[in-house]
Amino acid sequence: MGYTKSEKKAAKELFELALQRDYKRLQEDIKQYKCDTPESIWNLRYFLNKKAKEFDNKYDYRYSVLDEVFIGFILEGLLQVHELKGFSKERQTDLINTIQVMREK
Amino acid sequence: MGYTKSEKKAAKELFELALQRDYKRLQEDIKQYKCDTPESIWNLRYFLNKKAKEFDNKYDYRYSVLDEVFIGFILEGLLQVHELKGFSKERQTDLINTIQVMREK
Repeated sequence: MGYTKSEKKAAKELFELALQRDYKRLQEDIKQYKCDTPESIWNLRYFLNKKAKEFDNKYDYRYSVLDEVFIGFILEGLLQVHELKGFSKERQTDLINTIQVMREK
Repeated sequence: MGYTKSEKKAAKELFELALQRDYKRLQEDIKQYKCDTPESIWNLRYFLNKKAKEFDNKYDYRYSVLDEVFIGFILEGLLQVHELKGFSKERQTDLINTIQVMREK
């Protein structure tokens, strides 16, 4: 179902919020690499390449896929269900139901 | 000109020494990336990928290219001319002459 103007605004803010939280996690993960051995340096390189691909895939702002993107954010703990309140009741219910099904898998 | 047995031993040690020093430099360079912004994180990724390719090309232990490899180490300051003393006088002179020509370029 399409996004109303006010939903688009909410979506944009939530998208940015998830991205910021993801970067915070990434920063913490990077700190684990002491880079005091060649192995640790090249492991960090591998990790950053993996994360770059992951971010590229995850942060897709096309409206046609945005519901799935938000479901992913919630499953990953980047957003909480109660933060979806800027969306219509119908979209909230749809998202929550899908999340429940996916969690039961 | 071929490497004698004792030159091979000296070459191996110098090669490892240059590699260790290069890793020390790399560690210092990595510290410059604070990784406190998305830009700094992805800049570090780019830097590590560049360095991985550079190390891959530079640390080539085939005897057919080893003279050039040592010349490169000295031009980069990873080895000092006086550290080549495990090599024959003839090879030392050849290397030093080539280095001088390259420095004058």
